[in-house]
Amino acid sequence: MSERSPRAAIGFDIGGTFVKAGRLSPEGRAEREEQLPTPSQEGPEALVRVIDALFRVLNPEGADLSVGVGCAGLIDAGRGLVRTSPNLPLWKDVPLADLLAGPLGVRPAFLNDANAFTLAEWCLGAARGASSAVALTLGTGVGGGLVLDGRLWTGRNGFAGEIGHVPLMADGPLCACGARGCLEALVGASAIARRYDKLAGGGASGPAGKGITPRGIAERARAGDAAALSAFAETGRYLGLALRGVVHLVDPDVLVVGGGISGAADLFLPAARDAMRENLMHPPELAPEIRPAALGAAAGWIGAALHGLNPVV
Amino acid sequence: MSERSPRAAIGFDIGGTFVKAGRLSPEGRAEREEQLPTPSQEGPEALVRVIDALFRVLNPEGADLSVGVGCAGLIDAGRGLVRTSPNLPLWKDVPLADLLAGPLGVRPAFLNDANAFTLAEWCLGAARGASSAVALTLGTGVGGGLVLDGRLWTGRNGFAGEIGHVPLMADGPLCACGARGCLEALVGASAIARRYDKLAGGGASGPAGKGITPRGIAERARAGDAAALSAFAETGRYLGLALRGVVHLVDPDVLVVGGGISGAADLFLPAARDAMRENLMHPPELAPEIRPAALGAAAGWIGAALHGLNPVV
Repeated sequence: MSERSPRAAIGFDIGGTFVKAGRLSPEGRAEREEQLPTPSQEGPEALVRVIDALFRVLNPEGADLSVGVGCAGLIDAGRGLVRTSPNLPLWKDVPLADLLAGPLGVRPAFLNDANAFTLAEWCLGAARGASSAVALTLGTGVGGGLVLDGRLWTGRNGFAGEIGHVPLMADGPLCACGARGCLEALVGASAIARRYDKLAGGGASGPAGKGITPRGIAERARAGDAAALSAFAETGRYLGLALRGVVHLVDPDVLVVGGGISGAADLFLPAARDAMRENLMHPPELAPEIRPAALGAAAGWIGAALHGLNPVV
Repeated sequence: MSERSPRAAIGFDIGGTFVKAGRLSPEGRAEREEQLPTPSQEGPEALVRVIDALFRVLNPEGADLSVGVGCAGLIDAGRGLVRTSPNLPLWKDVPLADLLAGPLGVRPAFLNDANAFTLAEWCLGAARGASSAVALTLGTGVGGGLVLDGRLWTGRNGFAGEIGHVPLMADGPLCACGARGCLEALVGASAIARRYDKLAGGGASGPAGKGITPRGIAERARAGDAAALSAFAETGRYLGLALRGVVHLVDPDVLVVGGGISGAADLFLPAARDAMRENLMHPPELAPEIRPAALGAAAGWIGAALHGLNPVV
């Protein structure tokens, strides 16, 4: 990064339902947040209009700001290309950075949404000050990111951190990606619902566990529902096994768990910690902490804004 | 690293059976190799004598050389401490660097043996020129190492790269480490023997598959033994699944597979490549290559010597 005076930045987080955006002060304070529905069934022009509208609201004075954009899927960060995204199913190899450069008056920096989450939690959240960290987002999808030696590691192609699609149970349950036994197929939202449904004796959550959300299961668990408690404990155990693998491979300072399901962290993190530490090769005192994420749903746009200030690719 | 003129280095690889050592010229050429039996059932003094003897043979002129030592197990590289090692079962927290500094006249740099292998294959072998690489050694144990952004990544504690103990089949077969379903429990030497024994209808390799080595199974496979061919293909499939996970998490330029079992690479790498690429999120043209290691059994001491020249911790 060339030297420059501290400046504000605007970050965008293109989610499946909403585009969230916000402005980050030069001191790293979240100043203002806005959101608009994601035109997920339309082409790039509609999304460009949405992002442009949010940009005008967040930067009414037309200041010279840095801009970053995070989006789920395969993001070619160097070229600002959305190769494919589950949130934008009609898109294929869309040069979104180029398309935004005109309307915004600045070419935004791009990155994967889970990498944005990781960057935010590392710079301003749960992993602040760590030299290395691995962060996970748990939700319908399971994503993640790596900070190594004080910077985001995005890999050769910008695809690093796809921890949701690391096989954890060879020949296990089918994942949305088509593979079997991915972490996402074991700890994602629909896996939790299926697990609860099975433990509750079937039918409790409607056909194929589709009738109840992890939030609903968490409510039942807090009301003492044994099946709901077990569903989260078992989910935590699988998460902990995966984290043990991450620790053996990467040996980071700290692990961070966030995403929509992390509102139920109290229900699954204890089991995750136990499973991570069991048979860990590290002496117990050297096992990394598993910390809940600190920034909530704002982490996506905050990380995108941070990336805009200091792109790693 | 401080600047200094190119110099020769001596590397030691403390194996379960032999201590291998060699001298690396300033140009990175393996000049001379020696080995002595590892006094694995004795205390540190016996090993210090062995290393000192090899050092004198390899450096008869008493030149000012860099020295590096690689050893299996948990190595605290910063302090030159062997915390625990499967090759030195009686040892616990032995300050081997300190013990060697006197006799050798230089304090050696330490690292894990699989990290040494990785460093050698990256600097002088199959991953030469890559910006990032993940390397695996397949043998009785399964180890590995990561090169990220042009340097060895050893993690917070120096324990990174323990890919053999990344869970691949939750609740799967028991591993030597006490956990279930580790990669080592699925592709290590005894897993291959058990798999062959089962596929051959039992008893073919003696009780619990202990009577036949992967080398013997490879010979039978090359003679057309269907069970032996299947045992390697199935092993390759598990390896490929694990590598897909590594690629999703780290997204490296290249993957390297070495170790004792890699003599049978022609029998398992095709299946590994297929399994790695199946359901890989990367577009096919961006999938990394899986390359067989290039340096053979010398990689351990060569990597240790390279580490002596330029310690990463």
